[in-house]
Amino acid sequence: MGQNRIYVDNSATTPVSRESLAAMLPYFTECFGNPSAVYSYGREAKKALEDSRQAIAGLIGALNSEIFFTSGGTEGDNWILQSVCEQYAHKGRHIVSSKIEHSAVLRTLERLERRGFEVTLLEPDRAGMIHPDMLEKALRDDTILVSIMAANNVVGTLLPVKELCAAAHKRKILFHTDAVQALCHIPLDARSLGVDFLTFSAHKFHGPKGAGALYARVPLAPLPLISGGGQEKNRRSGTENVAAIAGMAAALEEELRGLAANIEKTRALRDKLIAAVVKLPGAFLTGDPEMRLPGLASFVFEDVEGQELVVKLDGEGVCASSGSACSSGSVEPSPVLSAMGYGNKLARGALRISLSRYNTEAEIDYIIEKLPGILEKLRAERRG
Amino acid sequence: MGQNRIYVDNSATTPVSRESLAAMLPYFTECFGNPSAVYSYGREAKKALEDSRQAIAGLIGALNSEIFFTSGGTEGDNWILQSVCEQYAHKGRHIVSSKIEHSAVLRTLERLERRGFEVTLLEPDRAGMIHPDMLEKALRDDTILVSIMAANNVVGTLLPVKELCAAAHKRKILFHTDAVQALCHIPLDARSLGVDFLTFSAHKFHGPKGAGALYARVPLAPLPLISGGGQEKNRRSGTENVAAIAGMAAALEEELRGLAANIEKTRALRDKLIAAVVKLPGAFLTGDPEMRLPGLASFVFEDVEGQELVVKLDGEGVCASSGSACSSGSVEPSPVLSAMGYGNKLARGALRISLSRYNTEAEIDYIIEKLPGILEKLRAERRG
Repeated sequence: MGQNRIYVDNSATTPVSRESLAAMLPYFTECFGNPSAVYSYGREAKKALEDSRQAIAGLIGALNSEIFFTSGGTEGDNWILQSVCEQYAHKGRHIVSSKIEHSAVLRTLERLERRGFEVTLLEPDRAGMIHPDMLEKALRDDTILVSIMAANNVVGTLLPVKELCAAAHKRKILFHTDAVQALCHIPLDARSLGVDFLTFSAHKFHGPKGAGALYARVPLAPLPLISGGGQEKNRRSGTENVAAIAGMAAALEEELRGLAANIEKTRALRDKLIAAVVKLPGAFLTGDPEMRLPGLASFVFEDVEGQELVVKLDGEGVCASSGSACSSGSVEPSPVLSAMGYGNKLARGALRISLSRYNTEAEIDYIIEKLPGILEKLRAERRG
Repeated sequence: MGQNRIYVDNSATTPVSRESLAAMLPYFTECFGNPSAVYSYGREAKKALEDSRQAIAGLIGALNSEIFFTSGGTEGDNWILQSVCEQYAHKGRHIVSSKIEHSAVLRTLERLERRGFEVTLLEPDRAGMIHPDMLEKALRDDTILVSIMAANNVVGTLLPVKELCAAAHKRKILFHTDAVQALCHIPLDARSLGVDFLTFSAHKFHGPKGAGALYARVPLAPLPLISGGGQEKNRRSGTENVAAIAGMAAALEEELRGLAANIEKTRALRDKLIAAVVKLPGAFLTGDPEMRLPGLASFVFEDVEGQELVVKLDGEGVCASSGSACSSGSVEPSPVLSAMGYGNKLARGALRISLSRYNTEAEIDYIIEKLPGILEKLRAERRG
């Protein structure tokens, strides 16, 4: 992706694919109408919107009426957690989630706590895994919602969403999964997972920033977080972002069309990287070694500051992350690694390499070549 | 704007300008980084974001720290109304707004009423005007917020925001204005208006859909509506929509650069249209004849259904609106016209023609030529 830089931070965001951009372009300047308008320009925009909805619904195993467009994953998470709490507070005020959730979930849960809800955050095991029996123990008669992500953004661990959801459903408790990191990286079908709510974001799979969706199983339509003109069946108001939604649909189609090949490709690159890195002194893989995102390799390094490591890698033309990109400028160790039992010292030395189908073996070889020297240098600087 | 269609529904949405699109394009595929990331791609995106913020702040008379990016005007309205109520409920639970506000304000106020807030909606006069003395009479010791729009979207009346705000401030009450229809149509400076909060949306001034901003006067930063990764100084989380924000800044710059000329041009076209239409039998101008948006002409016609009129105009290649585009598919008369004192019969025959600098005199002439025949035909069909 340009200028000889190696971009391996695809869990933070991705470039818009050519197909996705091409799908967006007509809706900026030509077919720019407001989908609520009755004339030709409006009807064309409305058609693009509904065609996108149908494509997306079909691709994730949903009905058209179960897809609600949002401005992204964070809005989706905020929306559904607040909606469920508002709708079902009369049934109970207890929510179960986990310590490895994205901050979009964790910060919203904190706000709900301030409004009188009680939150239990499950502790993952050392691999970042949440097992169904952990969840079962936490469920109570007043639990109204479980929210557990499909794949963790820091260490790539894949959570057993289907089993976790079944455990919640056995107790007649609603289940939400933040699938922002999972969609387009593993096969995902809302219906067969059985979840009630699922959120995702286009810019994580080569679609544009500013678009996402909430899947809400019929008949569990959410209460509005954002109200007004009555768009999205009166559930999410505001003029629809037609171009970005068309771009999201196109990106989703494109990625899922190549999913099996993409998984195979990124998994091979990931495994090559992991095999080489774990041989380095003081280097450890984080996250589940088997149940992990095919494109995500995550490590901790002894006696290294993750932020400094990322800066040095950037100096060598490699764009990687030391944790999640969403804790902007933060130099605190990732709370996910802390929750997994990593002490402050190791957790501070984190590195995340997240791949997409655009990455090549030559790029991985380059990282494998550069990394030992960088680590050595950083440790030497430390010893001073 | 393509295919010989005449687009005169610019109050509903506008095509993205070439300049705005050009400003967006680099951020989809090249400079696509997450602004929270520390490496080069991230820093470039962060710079684009902050450059856009600075440009926008400068153009509307604000400080950088007073601009919070949103997904559009509806989110902005929802956000600030809820934030003020959450922050200041201990001071009082009364809000004053008006019956001519956009549904993004009215529906949010309804939700706040269900949470125990009390709302007084001012009745406009026959011209859609809210005078400061109307507001003064409604203010109470427990009023915490006044929200009155800068320009009405249905009839184009310009509200005396500066004077209304001064009346609120005399009682130490916060003031918000929805400036979605006003920005880029009249000179607007947040500082000299004196307002505490102001919301706007890019797609109303030839920027992209999916981007807007909330101006919140220092030190009145809002509480988050959408929380998570801590973007926008921890006030609005979610990966920033860099491309759309850059497009918004470019569109705002472009429109304000030409504002005086655009006002002159659209006002002349508007006045030509109004002069011709009010001569037609059973046709009346709605909204204030003087204090109105330079590009907005709005009418009611006796014995005509606005929706049918719009469909017939569409048949002649003219894209116009019978009210606001946000009440999708609605055939109810506009609540704005009802509030202004129009009976059901007249209010149903509404037409809104909203211009931009792209419209031409030939287009206005065409509308003037076609309208009488269409009205006659519709009335004949009715008598049928």
